[in-house]
Amino acid sequence: MVFKLNNQLLSRMAIGDGHGENSSYFDGWKAYDSDPYHHQNNPDGVIQMGLAENQLCFDKVEEWLKKNPAASICTPEGVAGFKDVAIFQDYHGLPQFRNAVAKFMGKVRGDRVSFDPDRIVMAGGATGAHETVAFCLADPGEALLVPTPYYPGFDRDLRWRTGVQLVPIECDSANNFKLRMEDLEAAYEMAKLNNIRVKGLLLTNPSNPLGTILDGDTLRNIAAFTNENNIHLICDEIYSATVFGKPDYVSIAEIVDEDRKSGRNGLNLDLIHIVYSLSKDMGFPGLRVGIVYSYNDVVVSCARKMSSFGLVSAQTQHMIGSMLSDAEFVEEFLGANRARLAERHGAFTGGLGRVGIRCLRSSNAGLFVWMDLRRLLKEQSVEAETALWRVIINEVKLNVSPGSSFHCSEPGWFRVCFANMDDETMEVALGRIRAFVAKHKEAMKPARKLCAQSSLKLSFSGRIYDEFIMSPRSPIPQSPLVRART
Amino acid sequence: MVFKLNNQLLSRMAIGDGHGENSSYFDGWKAYDSDPYHHQNNPDGVIQMGLAENQLCFDKVEEWLKKNPAASICTPEGVAGFKDVAIFQDYHGLPQFRNAVAKFMGKVRGDRVSFDPDRIVMAGGATGAHETVAFCLADPGEALLVPTPYYPGFDRDLRWRTGVQLVPIECDSANNFKLRMEDLEAAYEMAKLNNIRVKGLLLTNPSNPLGTILDGDTLRNIAAFTNENNIHLICDEIYSATVFGKPDYVSIAEIVDEDRKSGRNGLNLDLIHIVYSLSKDMGFPGLRVGIVYSYNDVVVSCARKMSSFGLVSAQTQHMIGSMLSDAEFVEEFLGANRARLAERHGAFTGGLGRVGIRCLRSSNAGLFVWMDLRRLLKEQSVEAETALWRVIINEVKLNVSPGSSFHCSEPGWFRVCFANMDDETMEVALGRIRAFVAKHKEAMKPARKLCAQSSLKLSFSGRIYDEFIMSPRSPIPQSPLVRART
Repeated sequence: MVFKLNNQLLSRMAIGDGHGENSSYFDGWKAYDSDPYHHQNNPDGVIQMGLAENQLCFDKVEEWLKKNPAASICTPEGVAGFKDVAIFQDYHGLPQFRNAVAKFMGKVRGDRVSFDPDRIVMAGGATGAHETVAFCLADPGEALLVPTPYYPGFDRDLRWRTGVQLVPIECDSANNFKLRMEDLEAAYEMAKLNNIRVKGLLLTNPSNPLGTILDGDTLRNIAAFTNENNIHLICDEIYSATVFGKPDYVSIAEIVDEDRKSGRNGLNLDLIHIVYSLSKDMGFPGLRVGIVYSYNDVVVSCARKMSSFGLVSAQTQHMIGSMLSDAEFVEEFLGANRARLAERHGAFTGGLGRVGIRCLRSSNAGLFVWMDLRRLLKEQSVEAETALWRVIINEVKLNVSPGSSFHCSEPGWFRVCFANMDDETMEVALGRIRAFVAKHKEAMKPARKLCAQSSLKLSFSGRIYDEFIMSPRSPIPQSPLVRART
Repeated sequence: MVFKLNNQLLSRMAIGDGHGENSSYFDGWKAYDSDPYHHQNNPDGVIQMGLAENQLCFDKVEEWLKKNPAASICTPEGVAGFKDVAIFQDYHGLPQFRNAVAKFMGKVRGDRVSFDPDRIVMAGGATGAHETVAFCLADPGEALLVPTPYYPGFDRDLRWRTGVQLVPIECDSANNFKLRMEDLEAAYEMAKLNNIRVKGLLLTNPSNPLGTILDGDTLRNIAAFTNENNIHLICDEIYSATVFGKPDYVSIAEIVDEDRKSGRNGLNLDLIHIVYSLSKDMGFPGLRVGIVYSYNDVVVSCARKMSSFGLVSAQTQHMIGSMLSDAEFVEEFLGANRARLAERHGAFTGGLGRVGIRCLRSSNAGLFVWMDLRRLLKEQSVEAETALWRVIINEVKLNVSPGSSFHCSEPGWFRVCFANMDDETMEVALGRIRAFVAKHKEAMKPARKLCAQSSLKLSFSGRIYDEFIMSPRSPIPQSPLVRART
């Protein structure tokens, strides 16, 4: 009775499940929430390794804050600015904030490229930034191509309220999950055959969940492809400051710059857009600093109007504006961030390696590894992956994320986050993995032949596509639905 | 060429003008922006009276902040909490924030009613809150009724990205612009006749731009009407703490409570929703604290998922949570706020009254008056109102907002904000009005007969409705597009 009433009275959006949060993958979160690990109070609890948080440099931030009380509007030194900040609602943002973020984005890219503060548009985190871009680029029913595996939140952020579709491009381990031009072309053609209007390609570079970056040539080829086909290229670069090892990171901004400087001007810049955020690079997801940086003036103008729905709190703009204006701090923070991520990554993958567990080898970025447990699967299927995942959660007591939750077509891969904990907790996690592997020694022997690629290819017929959207393969494990830890 | 390209490549949303910001009403803002008044540096500049800001109690807030350094994560006393706040992204919000806001909402309503912290859903300001509610309640093409005059931002907030329509219900001065039941019923029936599916009624109580509140009986009758017709009642109560005079404010929450306590349970609570914010009541628009408070569990759940697009910065949640948990501060702030608004309102309307200018008399709330300049119009038309408005901006040098920008059907009314300036600036404004009226003495004589009601009634035929949406009568003068003043 009540449901019928709601059915009639609310929107389809309110009663549908386009938000993607009814997934079985939330079980991992529930397991963690009901039994969280604590080294003293709950040493047998579940360790949270499903959260791509960057907690390694807060000492640097706290140190800076103590030295810069005037950066806050809540200190005796800064309170005189409270009123002006509290009433500030220009959606261009505080000039200092915009300038500092633009400069920071350049600094993260080794100052090889610069960003125009007038193209910095605020949004409510990368979540809001992605939705804004989707609203600007595509009408309901139109689509964006996305290489798999990809961050499952995209299914909500880009699709839910916009009506935009995501069309996956399958990548696999045979090529270290790197996007191949032929797969991009095939997916584009297949979508067209199925009467899906493709408006663009969404790349995550560095990749979540892979922790890899795209090399310059691949990025150039991709940009040439989108350019030739007159479709947009959206680059999610929210992990750009987490590149901790060689080779160097190449941002789409550098490809743009290179094209401009060469005088070729072969790229239509109206087609290129960057999504940025401080949630991963600085570790501030709670501050909700999302950025749309577009080279297209109409998109800048429209996105800025949309930012009224997700403006960054002026209190936060003020603090971030001050903090990122301090060139010395930025330099030190970025250096420490890279060094500590490299160290943690080395320690964690080293520990895994010693018990015979490999991770995707080309990884040199991100807050996670892409762990290969294919040899532990009973069979090469999503069901077997899910069964193994439940063992990891319930017996090993680690909340990791299975590859299928990232739309990975090849079973047996898991994303394991390593930067949201201290060294001791990481050691406990490694110890548990060690014990688990000891029980499965046989399976871990490298002799066994692997299924390098799933035989399942998604077709784009309407029916299957709908199932793809609504199936349990479309969850949001890395959702903000986590319990408060304050 | 470029336009054609964009036309094809971007969404209809990006190239359309559903954002409503191409309006001629922005001329007033441009006039202010290019020549802002300053008592010393630019004493002949334009005085900003188009901005519904509440600047009268910042001394109280600053005093509190100085006494409570631990409320900030940027002070030596509070910085230990920085990390936990910076990584906090649960979209239920910090428990202290949710509890404090719920308590504050009760306190604002004289503690006659209480709010459940579990129904407090965050949004990016009232702007985001309204959009969220629209997304939850209506599908594209469906409509909400809204009494006129109403805040022009609704045309963007509720319609732009949702595809929802707003159907105006005309109110006029014959009844002090109070919503009449027969007009509500007629608008509802007319919409149905025109095959518009009405999903709800949106009330702003206290009203912007009128500065009036609805009496309990009217509110009861309206709730009975929406209940009987099985449509939603959305109450925008963002000005509830600005009620500075008798009669006392009655919130829809009190009507709900009354119904519950009486045991009648005549109201279907699934149909009742409140939009709240701290932008007006506390004067913090820059902090982007918007709230959806719904009695409908499905709406709470869906809106909370949507809040991922417009979460309040955890830094701001932390500060507001601490501040509003201080019962003594809240008491003092609310008292001072009311007293100072009453004083300013009295001084301003008194000053206007002495030169023969009347404002809507029933006004006892808000940050503005609804000024009656009908006698100064050359004829009773929107054109004449616009002509007078241009004189006020360019010669009197006051940026006020003409009634037509609020979809007021009766020409000659202007919204004049009085709480965004100091006493001296208000006196300068009054002096200018005095001088202006002296030049138009004849017109101000009370003898002249007034046109009490516009003869123009909007029809809901598709064509006229579209014109209504797209015409210059659909602007957003009170947009956040204001220049930074920090």
